Amino acid sequence: MNILFVMYDQLRFDYLSCAGHPHLHTPNFDKVAAMGVRFTESYVQSPICGGSRMCFYTGRYASSHGAHWNGFPLRVGEMTLGDHLRHNGMGCWLIGKTHMAADSEGMARLGLSADTVIGARQVECGFDAWIRDDGLWAQGPDGFYDARRSPYNEYLKDKGYPSDNPWAAFANAGVDGDDNIASGWMFKNADKPANIREEDSETPWLTREAIAFMEQAEGPWCAHLSYIKPHWPYIVPAPYHDMFGPQHVPPAKRHAVEREDPHPVYGAYMENKIAAAFGRDEVREKVIPAYMGLIKQCDDQLGVLLDYLEQSGQMAQTMIVLTSDHGDYLGDHWLGEKDLFHAQSVKVPMIIYDPRSEADATRGTTCDALVESIDLAATFVEVAGGAVPDHIIEGRSLLPWLRGEVPDWRDFVISEYDYSATPQGAKLGLAPRDCRLFMVYDGRYKLMHAEGGLRPMLFDLEADPDEFHDLAKGDAHGAEIERLYGCLASWGRRMSQRVTKSEAEIIAARGKSARKGVLPFLVDGSEVPAELTEAYRGPARARYTSD
Amino acid sequence: MNILFVMYDQLRFDYLSCAGHPHLHTPNFDKVAAMGVRFTESYVQSPICGGSRMCFYTGRYASSHGAHWNGFPLRVGEMTLGDHLRHNGMGCWLIGKTHMAADSEGMARLGLSADTVIGARQVECGFDAWIRDDGLWAQGPDGFYDARRSPYNEYLKDKGYPSDNPWAAFANAGVDGDDNIASGWMFKNADKPANIREEDSETPWLTREAIAFMEQAEGPWCAHLSYIKPHWPYIVPAPYHDMFGPQHVPPAKRHAVEREDPHPVYGAYMENKIAAAFGRDEVREKVIPAYMGLIKQCDDQLGVLLDYLEQSGQMAQTMIVLTSDHGDYLGDHWLGEKDLFHAQSVKVPMIIYDPRSEADATRGTTCDALVESIDLAATFVEVAGGAVPDHIIEGRSLLPWLRGEVPDWRDFVISEYDYSATPQGAKLGLAPRDCRLFMVYDGRYKLMHAEGGLRPMLFDLEADPDEFHDLAKGDAHGAEIERLYGCLASWGRRMSQRVTKSEAEIIAARGKSARKGVLPFLVDGSEVPAELTEAYRGPARARYTSD
Repeated sequence: MNILFVMYDQLRFDYLSCAGHPHLHTPNFDKVAAMGVRFTESYVQSPICGGSRMCFYTGRYASSHGAHWNGFPLRVGEMTLGDHLRHNGMGCWLIGKTHMAADSEGMARLGLSADTVIGARQVECGFDAWIRDDGLWAQGPDGFYDARRSPYNEYLKDKGYPSDNPWAAFANAGVDGDDNIASGWMFKNADKPANIREEDSETPWLTREAIAFMEQAEGPWCAHLSYIKPHWPYIVPAPYHDMFGPQHVPPAKRHAVEREDPHPVYGAYMENKIAAAFGRDEVREKVIPAYMGLIKQCDDQLGVLLDYLEQSGQMAQTMIVLTSDHGDYLGDHWLGEKDLFHAQSVKVPMIIYDPRSEADATRGTTCDALVESIDLAATFVEVAGGAVPDHIIEGRSLLPWLRGEVPDWRDFVISEYDYSATPQGAKLGLAPRDCRLFMVYDGRYKLMHAEGGLRPMLFDLEADPDEFHDLAKGDAHGAEIERLYGCLASWGRRMSQRVTKSEAEIIAARGKSARKGVLPFLVDGSEVPAELTEAYRGPARARYTSD
Repeated sequence: MNILFVMYDQLRFDYLSCAGHPHLHTPNFDKVAAMGVRFTESYVQSPICGGSRMCFYTGRYASSHGAHWNGFPLRVGEMTLGDHLRHNGMGCWLIGKTHMAADSEGMARLGLSADTVIGARQVECGFDAWIRDDGLWAQGPDGFYDARRSPYNEYLKDKGYPSDNPWAAFANAGVDGDDNIASGWMFKNADKPANIREEDSETPWLTREAIAFMEQAEGPWCAHLSYIKPHWPYIVPAPYHDMFGPQHVPPAKRHAVEREDPHPVYGAYMENKIAAAFGRDEVREKVIPAYMGLIKQCDDQLGVLLDYLEQSGQMAQTMIVLTSDHGDYLGDHWLGEKDLFHAQSVKVPMIIYDPRSEADATRGTTCDALVESIDLAATFVEVAGGAVPDHIIEGRSLLPWLRGEVPDWRDFVISEYDYSATPQGAKLGLAPRDCRLFMVYDGRYKLMHAEGGLRPMLFDLEADPDEFHDLAKGDAHGAEIERLYGCLASWGRRMSQRVTKSEAEIIAARGKSARKGVLPFLVDGSEVPAELTEAYRGPARARYTSD
């Protein structure tokens, strides 16, 4: 079986019709949900592109792999999905974005060069790159945000788009009334059509690359088809640019009580520029329709993929996974972007179709088990026929749920966020190591712990499903806070770095040292069978002491 | 300045005359203590050879580097003292034991070969090996405990000792009345002289290697002179074998109350073969004099080293550090060996002589700050002239203490123990990941947390300096237990894996993305200086949309 592991970027859990969106119809997402299982309680281990993805790709928590944020390199030698899958005979390919930053210092220290197969995989987070394009070709006075070469920009240039950076000038810009570039970076332009042929925009381009990959691929393979969209810049080509309008924009989910004595970190985020922009109705009314148009385009392109799989006869041998690296506040909770732990940010779509007959019983169902993004790595290893190396991969296989079983399962999910490199970290004046947040969510209560001596936040999602009322402001919920801190403490003591010895190897080694002559308990040798002391007996053959 | 980093193996903190031993006179240890500072509250991060040493050599907690126990490989790429010191222009050499197990799977994955400089350092825990000899050439029906070649055995063979394993047959054995080998593995033979010329025994041999190294070394260097002794087998050549007798053996520090409803892990250790042997007075009366003789020999050889340093003029430019990887119960607390967290096991000697004038004020003093073994790595980096990379090294430099300052310091020390591969782990029927213990000690209270759902232990060292009365058996000390669990929880959340980005790099990166064109908050561009949006302006040059 092959695995088509599709990730969208910044796709909110509730912007799909199968997840109940009232205006956005996504028949192809819904079709995969009907063929498989939709996990309704899926959480990323860090609500930020880079950190979240490194969790997906290693199957480990952010604090375990250490690449907590965008541009924090994943340490050389950290094992990835690619290592685990290839070990089990399955290729592991990348088509699109990873946000991987290579540990170039570590590679230099170990003498690894990116122009070898081993080195290239270190650079690409363990993937073999069919195509790598992180899709953020931002450019300013200090140069490009991403110093790599952009295959997508090369494609656009080949197609004749006249710009050094057609990603910025065409794919992510419209045209204003004076025939000037109307940059997609500016929310006022979000209702303009991107100045690009729809077929040349990012999502169809990457879909074609995925099909080209599958056309030639020999299995078994896992292909990580990783779209940049619906991530900002919020602008989409015709006809998607005007499919939705202000009438399709729900009111922001926000409450005045949230602004009353907010947690200092939450308060700092509410005061940032993104939050200020999304606080304006006219911004939401332009941006959200564009965001919906981007998702609608993703859905159409998913239809193209599904058609290809059906027509090529691969549907019966391809697992399909649809997920996202985090959500988007879109003005909810007085915020824009992601970063914090409200559902809008930390909860993601997770739809899995398993073509095998064992999964027939669950087709079209939903599952509300507490799923972590790191579970996919474990799932994929099992699909590849391997045993999950649970001393390395911290997630758990979702296959039992797909078979309709009810496995022993976790009681809480963890997510983390490192805001040390952000303006909020600077504003709060904290040392980088103190700019760290942890979420513990047990299916009802959600605790946020903040380092740096700050108080926690607490929500009761049963009483307050919209997460407006921070119960940690009062003093009535000490027992719940203490209980969730206990969960966080037990997680903090987890075995995460003993990656060189498996549980099975340790059990097999128990008591073996005596048979290799280590006997630090013998009084006269009678304590053990004679064969264990054989090597220590015999004539002295020479005497160097007169005693 | 150079660093002579001397480690003894299994040397108890209190078996030195400067530490108050009533019968064991160690004038050379005392001399270094008089020249420097003796840290009286020094704790290893794991009371077992391999785990402890990997903490010393990485400057990181066991849970951070993952090599928790003997033979658990240190993951490839984990940074060591060698990496940090060479980065600061100081060589880092090994003379003796490390107990390092190489991550051969990880090396193969990264294409590293042990016959390159880079690969050899991975194998040798970052050291350049002047000589590597782990000093445990045990042999049984399943072969050698240590599969390497033994330089010490080669030396003995060259000297004509007639055996395939003269370490076992001569250096660690006496001769019985029938002229047969009387193995040092058997405690009944501990009062016999080892059947070897004293000069050929392990401690003098390694001392000569150290001097040979220093004779040719060009500085600055850090030399890790790492003796196997006084580690078992407990047998020592003449004249050390009869310097001490039963009259010098203190009564075992143990109390009947310790055997009443003991903690399950402690109980399992009290029932093992080593504890049973040390429960017999005749064993203690033979073994402890041999242990003292081994230490006395170490002290004499330290005198040889000090003489060399003085005569060669190096004393004024050599920092000397004397420490151990853990202690030895020797029958105290009804136990033998090490492993648990009583002072006899987890507390170590720590004597530092700094020849520089800044340290003049503290010569001959003691310091009772809570020291962790991981502090040496930080100390050495500072000695080499570097800034401690505190996103990697978790210890703190001891230099301020040596200068007589009182730095902001830690409130508690942590130690860990993984007994998953031991008979005790098997006996308790726990999964390997649940066979883990944590110590939190704040200078008065010592908490032991045990995974696997077991209760904690608690000692109040002010009221009970001998650690006989486990206060966690009752229910009167809940507040102290909770407080120490809070310390453990905060430690569990520490930033330990973000090893690819320093605090300073993060601070420098704050707010830089806008100058690289990442502007996900613009409504119309007026929010930022025009230069930041320059790249996104200009004529569209072509129009691909009719809107």
